[in-house]
Amino acid sequence: MSSSPGTTLRALRERKPLVHQITNYVVMNETANATLALGALPVMAHAREEVEEMVALAGALVLNIGTLSPRWVEAMIAAGKAANAASIPVVLDPVGAGATRYRTETAKRILAEVDVTVLRGNQGEVATLVGVAAEVRGVESISAADGAADVACTAGRNLGLVASVTGPVDHVSDGDRVLAVANGHELLASVTGTGCMSSAITGCFLAVKRDEPLEAAAEALSAFGVAGEDAAREAKGPGSFHVGLYDALAALDPETLDGRARIT
Amino acid sequence: MSSSPGTTLRALRERKPLVHQITNYVVMNETANATLALGALPVMAHAREEVEEMVALAGALVLNIGTLSPRWVEAMIAAGKAANAASIPVVLDPVGAGATRYRTETAKRILAEVDVTVLRGNQGEVATLVGVAAEVRGVESISAADGAADVACTAGRNLGLVASVTGPVDHVSDGDRVLAVANGHELLASVTGTGCMSSAITGCFLAVKRDEPLEAAAEALSAFGVAGEDAAREAKGPGSFHVGLYDALAALDPETLDGRARIT
Amino acid sequence: MSSSPGTTLRALRERKPLVHQITNYVVMNETANATLALGALPVMAHAREEVEEMVALAGALVLNIGTLSPRWVEAMIAAGKAANAASIPVVLDPVGAGATRYRTETAKRILAEVDVTVLRGNQGEVATLVGVAAEVRGVESISAADGAADVACTAGRNLGLVASVTGPVDHVSDGDRVLAVANGHELLASVTGTGCMSSAITGCFLAVKRDEPLEAAAEALSAFGVAGEDAAREAKGPGSFHVGLYDALAALDPETLDGRARIT
Repeated sequence: MSSSPGTTLRALRERKPLVHQITNYVVMNETANATLALGALPVMAHAREEVEEMVALAGALVLNIGTLSPRWVEAMIAAGKAANAASIPVVLDPVGAGATRYRTETAKRILAEVDVTVLRGNQGEVATLVGVAAEVRGVESISAADGAADVACTAGRNLGLVASVTGPVDHVSDGDRVLAVANGHELLASVTGTGCMSSAITGCFLAVKRDEPLEAAAEALSAFGVAGEDAAREAKGPGSFHVGLYDALAALDPETLDGRARIT
Repeated sequence: MSSSPGTTLRALRERKPLVHQITNYVVMNETANATLALGALPVMAHAREEVEEMVALAGALVLNIGTLSPRWVEAMIAAGKAANAASIPVVLDPVGAGATRYRTETAKRILAEVDVTVLRGNQGEVATLVGVAAEVRGVESISAADGAADVACTAGRNLGLVASVTGPVDHVSDGDRVLAVANGHELLASVTGTGCMSSAITGCFLAVKRDEPLEAAAEALSAFGVAGEDAAREAKGPGSFHVGLYDALAALDPETLDGRARIT
Repeated sequence: MSSSPGTTLRALRERKPLVHQITNYVVMNETANATLALGALPVMAHAREEVEEMVALAGALVLNIGTLSPRWVEAMIAAGKAANAASIPVVLDPVGAGATRYRTETAKRILAEVDVTVLRGNQGEVATLVGVAAEVRGVESISAADGAADVACTAGRNLGLVASVTGPVDHVSDGDRVLAVANGHELLASVTGTGCMSSAITGCFLAVKRDEPLEAAAEALSAFGVAGEDAAREAKGPGSFHVGLYDALAALDPETLDGRARIT
């Protein structure tokens, strides 16, 4: 069971890796709290003056273009290159790629200049980045069309990374193998930033399992999905679900997680 | 009943309009979640490089000067002009107008350069923008003096827009008619950003009722107010009220809303 | 009992001081809501164009370097100097000092250019600023080593201010006297931004007790700690604790606070 989600979660809580996040204004508090609830240590830092030094202290770097602007893009690329130089895994969340040229081009530029370990997005965003037609409307995922597994596989192969495509069923692929993750709850789509949280948690898992990014990415989604299932049980709507999600992440038991993870 | 709040809410949930928000750092997560809970799709984007393209995809634009700085002001004006060119309704929330010259002047500049559909603020902020004396202290509304209806009417007439002045009783006016909205709860004043949320929800309603901005603005405030009443029922204080507000927005039933809306 | 925490809290709720905060993106909503829940009025403003005018309206200024960048640093220093000129107390929260050179140097620069009233940080951050070896990992405090009282006393004496060092037991010192505050709960460490909230609340207390900064800082920590104890009682994890914290701050009764404050 050395590669089970529960084993990775246990390692994460013991090592408490620092996860450096350069993310959007909308979800900073949320991804920091999800990281902390799970058992890792978040740090947000975006100044060109410090990102290279900060990322060198981290176990993983998460880049998220949800509210981007030129200075932030430069900082993301500088941090990404420093992470690469130190063999620190990098997660890219291409929020809204396909919605505007600036987002699409920025995501492509980061992919070109930084060696991204895991690309975590919804189907439309990831499809955009490999030239597959997709419906993107703003930054919320609209629907999961068929073919999510194909999009993940194509992205994994063409971009030379692990593509983690989330939706009702998540698909994670390195271009060769495809893992499907069938955990989660529809209430996750009712709270803004849950996609960004799943990227942050992917960073947490990668920090303690950097040599197996495909498994780490799938395990992260199963852990987040199981927490979502737990939070949904007592939720009365998106507000109480959101609160319960942090409680559930903190309460996540490694053994229970192994029993409930639906990775195939 | 084609113009009832419930009918508009039902249309909003069917069409799921994208509501582009250039707003302040303090409330971005909150207004995004309120938008999503109600049934519309939020998108936050502030880079000069993408605001014109993003707003063209949207059903409404919400500008909020709560934590402004020069680049953001330029982006707001560029987005506002693009919205005008495409006949997309624009909401302006002049947070803190009257507190500093920079805020007052920025709000006036936006009003001069952009054709604003609805100006949504507290009495002090709106009064400041039409040259009426008012007490403004920071960005939280202090008290509702008498004369809110007059301020709304004067602002509507002098600025050529719909003025939506919120307080214990809200007053919405196009300079000719004045609608009073008597929904809401005092706990709304105990959570930061509820005014900003009401502006975001005004944008949601305008997106599906752009030809009747006076009615759309009043209906939005009644919907938000009824959700506030519902959230207050089980709240133990501002924290649980805040959480319950999202649950209540998501649970808002169009027929119940029509029965409880107090628009006169 | 003129110097009890309850007396100060009562004065705060009567006077409702405006507390100007130039803080980090991660916690802005949280510190604003904590300020409001306690009974003061928060205002966030960071533009160089308005900070001096805004701070002149305030009862206290809180500077927090959690997500700093050059323009924000300039604004913090300008606001700090304006606060000094008007005898408005200044709180500095040196988030992450010791983690990167940029943070350490910025904190030192603010201390050199602004007359800071209270320096509120964790042990590692404060130790860094007085040249004492400390473990700093990102921005979350790792553990409370022995010697927190010494760090507070050294910082108070060497920097000529009140040092407020938080941990399992907090220590507040002006370099001469040391007050220990034994309120709080371990769940406070499971939510991001609780340290930043304690700095904001320190600003609230200073605003109504500027002549006794040592007592004000200790009373603020006891009030926040008691609220934390209350919130922990019904919490199921970090999410519900976070929500309960605002409810508890709003419900904090001055007399009960005096009975439960553990300041020695």
